[in-house]
Amino acid sequence: MKQSQLFTKTRKEAPKDEVSKNAELLIRAGFIHKEMAGVYSYLPLGLRVLKNIERIIREEMNALGGQEVLLTTLQNKESWQKTGRFDDAVIDNWFKTKLKNDTELGLANTHEEPLSALLTNFAKSFRDFPLYIYQIQTKFRNESRAKSGIMRGREFLMKDLYSFSRDQKEHDVFYEKAKNAYHKIFTRVGLGGQTYETFASGGSFAKYSHEFQTVTDAGEDIIYIDEKKRIAVNKEVLAPEVLKELGLEKKDLVEKKAVEVGNIFSLGTRFSLPLGLFYTDEKGEKKPVIIGSYGIGLGRLMGTVVEVLSDEKGIIWPESIAPFTVHLVSLLGDKVDVRTYADNLYLKLEKSGVSVLYDDRDLRPGEKFADSDLIGIPNRAIISERGMKDDKIEWKNRETGDIEMIDEKEFFRRVPRTVHV
Amino acid sequence: MKQSQLFTKTRKEAPKDEVSKNAELLIRAGFIHKEMAGVYSYLPLGLRVLKNIERIIREEMNALGGQEVLLTTLQNKESWQKTGRFDDAVIDNWFKTKLKNDTELGLANTHEEPLSALLTNFAKSFRDFPLYIYQIQTKFRNESRAKSGIMRGREFLMKDLYSFSRDQKEHDVFYEKAKNAYHKIFTRVGLGGQTYETFASGGSFAKYSHEFQTVTDAGEDIIYIDEKKRIAVNKEVLAPEVLKELGLEKKDLVEKKAVEVGNIFSLGTRFSLPLGLFYTDEKGEKKPVIIGSYGIGLGRLMGTVVEVLSDEKGIIWPESIAPFTVHLVSLLGDKVDVRTYADNLYLKLEKSGVSVLYDDRDLRPGEKFADSDLIGIPNRAIISERGMKDDKIEWKNRETGDIEMIDEKEFFRRVPRTVHV
Repeated sequence: MKQSQLFTKTRKEAPKDEVSKNAELLIRAGFIHKEMAGVYSYLPLGLRVLKNIERIIREEMNALGGQEVLLTTLQNKESWQKTGRFDDAVIDNWFKTKLKNDTELGLANTHEEPLSALLTNFAKSFRDFPLYIYQIQTKFRNESRAKSGIMRGREFLMKDLYSFSRDQKEHDVFYEKAKNAYHKIFTRVGLGGQTYETFASGGSFAKYSHEFQTVTDAGEDIIYIDEKKRIAVNKEVLAPEVLKELGLEKKDLVEKKAVEVGNIFSLGTRFSLPLGLFYTDEKGEKKPVIIGSYGIGLGRLMGTVVEVLSDEKGIIWPESIAPFTVHLVSLLGDKVDVRTYADNLYLKLEKSGVSVLYDDRDLRPGEKFADSDLIGIPNRAIISERGMKDDKIEWKNRETGDIEMIDEKEFFRRVPRTVHV
Repeated sequence: MKQSQLFTKTRKEAPKDEVSKNAELLIRAGFIHKEMAGVYSYLPLGLRVLKNIERIIREEMNALGGQEVLLTTLQNKESWQKTGRFDDAVIDNWFKTKLKNDTELGLANTHEEPLSALLTNFAKSFRDFPLYIYQIQTKFRNESRAKSGIMRGREFLMKDLYSFSRDQKEHDVFYEKAKNAYHKIFTRVGLGGQTYETFASGGSFAKYSHEFQTVTDAGEDIIYIDEKKRIAVNKEVLAPEVLKELGLEKKDLVEKKAVEVGNIFSLGTRFSLPLGLFYTDEKGEKKPVIIGSYGIGLGRLMGTVVEVLSDEKGIIWPESIAPFTVHLVSLLGDKVDVRTYADNLYLKLEKSGVSVLYDDRDLRPGEKFADSDLIGIPNRAIISERGMKDDKIEWKNRETGDIEMIDEKEFFRRVPRTVHV
């Protein structure tokens, strides 16, 4: 895409009421727009990142045998009353609304109830299970405080996967697979090194749930990390007996602030019993289905990447989710040759399927470089009069700042051709 | 995908309260699930169709120079009060909700206000225009009656494109291009022959708006068609002076029921003036931006395809949006050879990127054929003992019912390899 045609522009400052680093950088770079606290629109650059994250998550969910659906935001209260969760005293972040006839509806903040109820129409025999069903869909949560930018949204895109197993053993096997898929996802989006499988409180049906916590000062959680074993314990369950059980020692643990980028829960029969999701086993016996739920907030993940992978100049996107993989920047100077060469190079890149943003704007080099640093595309290719004299392109790595002068052949060897939006 | 692993099953009957043909067929075939009137979840087959429609629309929007964004559902009232549209008496199908601090919010049913307000941050000079911005996003409309299945949803995916032009002439040129893009979209999803560009009432800023009306008895509109000129007039503007102006004659017109699958509006300065979206022209003069809006409801389009392209046995999907392009059906009989051959064929198809549903279930042929007719995949390949004796595959066209016995080489020549989910 030509940058001259992109409708967003970078801004010197984010809105005054924006206190989070992720939203501040993303707003200044033109990735998102703040509608109100916790409610952000995605602009072209931001939507491209979001879709790259979505693609990675979808690939890993499909690899797990997940079947994709799209459930609804509007919820009638029946299913939720069966589990006792329509009550604002039980789930305190509902948005509620009303039909014309005054019927009260909720805006879904999760989907255990409607999906379990839906499944009773299809799955009844042991032959119909196990099932793994997921969606990538907008959730609504009426947060009283929403000061963490896109890391804590009132409206946000979430991947929620639900597993439906015949018994605890079958559930446990899948639960481990899901854990591995989560590690893959966080590694693929560039947070592998900073993200820890973390033991957290488990509710009624499991001793622990598992969170995936990414270390950052912007995090709202406190975790205790055993760096050697690469596992952590959430402060909420930190106790001598827990450490003993997990084979951890207090002295090996380091306290860190972290953000929960994913979580997985064993829900047992908490939802299948009240919603009537049973199956008939080989012997004709009726048994409740064992449910697990597995969430990742896409905006939160994107925001966390920005918190962790950025410097004083701006964002540093990993290639896998960058809005574009190459930022082609032409320094026009006085010569028409530069523009012609850069225009042609851009066309060649587009033709060979490279995801490229071409800064063809008539601006000073300093402005172009500042914008490029802020936007954070991982590879920058600079076309200038100086370089052209030696038939060279300046190739700069956003993360390391390393610069090399390379010829066009080498340039085409280096440009990434990964699957990308 | 193997049909034995698909969690949905076909059903003999739709819910009793379902009166529309599109929802009845889609529910029976397992494409959608009814949560409440006008609110439907998309199951794996339905989501595949929806995504194919989305892909076609996105391609045509990008070809128009559209930049994709994702705006929010939650709306604070400020922008809407400036245009007078937050009032329930003005827009009578708002869903409203509240933040914890009692601030009233609306759930967006359209996005002229937030997008125009957003643009004032970026576009100020004549150099910044024209702009074409679109999204594919869920809309909420509090319909008092919602009896048309997915053709009239209370919650539905919509493509909304907005054009921002510097003057009426620039607007008019784009408006014609958008019209052409709409014709392409309706042709690509299989409704070209039944869809008419229709003159409808234009509001304050244009004599007419343009609807794209697809002829079907399930439609809620009445239109008058001049079949030769392939244009129509909505009943709401049918009057002698209108016909005269359009060069139509009453005697050439045929009255039909139709559904509005798309609409395009010239909005003039209706939104730019109250929201302050101005630009400075070449002479330094401040001028209001001319806005157009262009909508297509994805669910409505999918529902219309089902209304128009179906028979007493089920749905007949066009290849372009079918959930799969090939339905491979094995008739197991007693022989293990049939399963082995069909299993291998399925793997080969998957490997070569064909979008295939493989009915590997151990059911009677009659049940498999009835399901296949109901689901409506355009090409059916039947593997049976009888065919295998002559090294042949039975190739059946869902629309025409034509059957041919072909060998594997010919089969691989015929299977569609179009871009597809």
